Amino acid sequence: MLALYHFGPVANSLTPLLCLLEKGAAFESRALDGRKWEHHDPEFRAINPEGTVPVLVHDRRVLRESTVINEYLDDILPDPPLRPSDPWERAEMRVLTKYVDEYFCPALTVLGAHGATAFASKIDKRVMAQRLANMPNEEVRRKWATISDAGFSDAELADARRRLGNCIARLETQLGDGRPWLMGGTYTLADIKWYSMAPALPRVMVQACNAVAAPATTAWLARMAERPAVAALPAYAPSR
Amino acid sequence: MLALYHFGPVANSLTPLLCLLEKGAAFESRALDGRKWEHHDPEFRAINPEGTVPVLVHDRRVLRESTVINEYLDDILPDPPLRPSDPWERAEMRVLTKYVDEYFCPALTVLGAHGATAFASKIDKRVMAQRLANMPNEEVRRKWATISDAGFSDAELADARRRLGNCIARLETQLGDGRPWLMGGTYTLADIKWYSMAPALPRVMVQACNAVAAPATTAWLARMAERPAVAALPAYAPSR
Repeated sequence: MLALYHFGPVANSLTPLLCLLEKGAAFESRALDGRKWEHHDPEFRAINPEGTVPVLVHDRRVLRESTVINEYLDDILPDPPLRPSDPWERAEMRVLTKYVDEYFCPALTVLGAHGATAFASKIDKRVMAQRLANMPNEEVRRKWATISDAGFSDAELADARRRLGNCIARLETQLGDGRPWLMGGTYTLADIKWYSMAPALPRVMVQACNAVAAPATTAWLARMAERPAVAALPAYAPSR
Repeated sequence: MLALYHFGPVANSLTPLLCLLEKGAAFESRALDGRKWEHHDPEFRAINPEGTVPVLVHDRRVLRESTVINEYLDDILPDPPLRPSDPWERAEMRVLTKYVDEYFCPALTVLGAHGATAFASKIDKRVMAQRLANMPNEEVRRKWATISDAGFSDAELADARRRLGNCIARLETQLGDGRPWLMGGTYTLADIKWYSMAPALPRVMVQACNAVAAPATTAWLARMAERPAVAALPAYAPSR
């Protein structure tokens, strides 16, 4: 039995959600409400002591890391395959997913966390101190301490935008030959991974990510949105 | 034909070097001298325009990213296998290699780059400006600009040490049940990836990484050093 704990169809939680939907897999969807800090509650920490999301539970075993989860899902649910069969192309696909994890995601996280400052600043200081003390993962705790305190500096925000500009350029280069998907004619885990972050680009990078400045990216985002599995994503948002 | 461009048996360059040696693979070793900035020379940039090392060249195709290179090598040179055959264990192995790329390596890079300040500060400012202008990769250029300018702050260095402390704790936990290798009884790409960084720990984290404070890590480092492939690594240093 497969169960996915997630925050809904957004960011790293979208990665395994979309993969499961593309596979047509039977799974239990267990949406946590991040704004209610449900991922730091004892119930979830009994499953993942780090309190990080998403995690896949398969026959009582717990797997973290959305990119690794998707390669595992492609191993155990091989139909349809979402990695190229050729070892070289598979390696190139992994370079693309690795770029999202190591470069795109950290840059977008700065802007995303900055956007949460309005939410965090409304929380009573003593309540927030308790929240921080309850966060099991040290890096997450430090991020929220920054957000609820001074926030990110203008220099940090500008640097995040610079890096996101490079992400758009990389997408434009990768898709520049008119290919429908990042690896060419075949839809892969690379499309899924990039789509976990890329829908934010037209909103947060208005000048750099639009149909004129980034036509290939814009067309790819539209193609992604037309996929039935992508259209099914909104149903997996946490109920509020 | 396989060729590996690398900086010698250190850090990310060690990762594919050690894998090739464990496989007993025939390959051309092309060591670049980083202190002579050979990776920014036109000859190498014709191979990798980013000027980053290591890269694997296989039948004229170029692959970056040491972790991806090793999975590719394990695909095309399956004997001996260096990934578990069980999908779940393979996923757990990938969580371990991912941690090195996303957490261990960036922390160690801060201290390593800080250690290069003595070297960089001896370079004439105008020569260094030319060097910086010649660096194709923007993030690498920014790192060297920091090193040759003010260096990292005490707070940045302390935070890197905090994170390296977590890396030692993770190694101790992983090896805590007495297993010889990170994944248990079988030596895998996870041991290779961690060994690309871990030999620096007893030197840069003297109090936290020694036989008393980190016995499992110390014993694993000694086991690694006894492997014939590890003993063969020094021969691959760039000649000076």
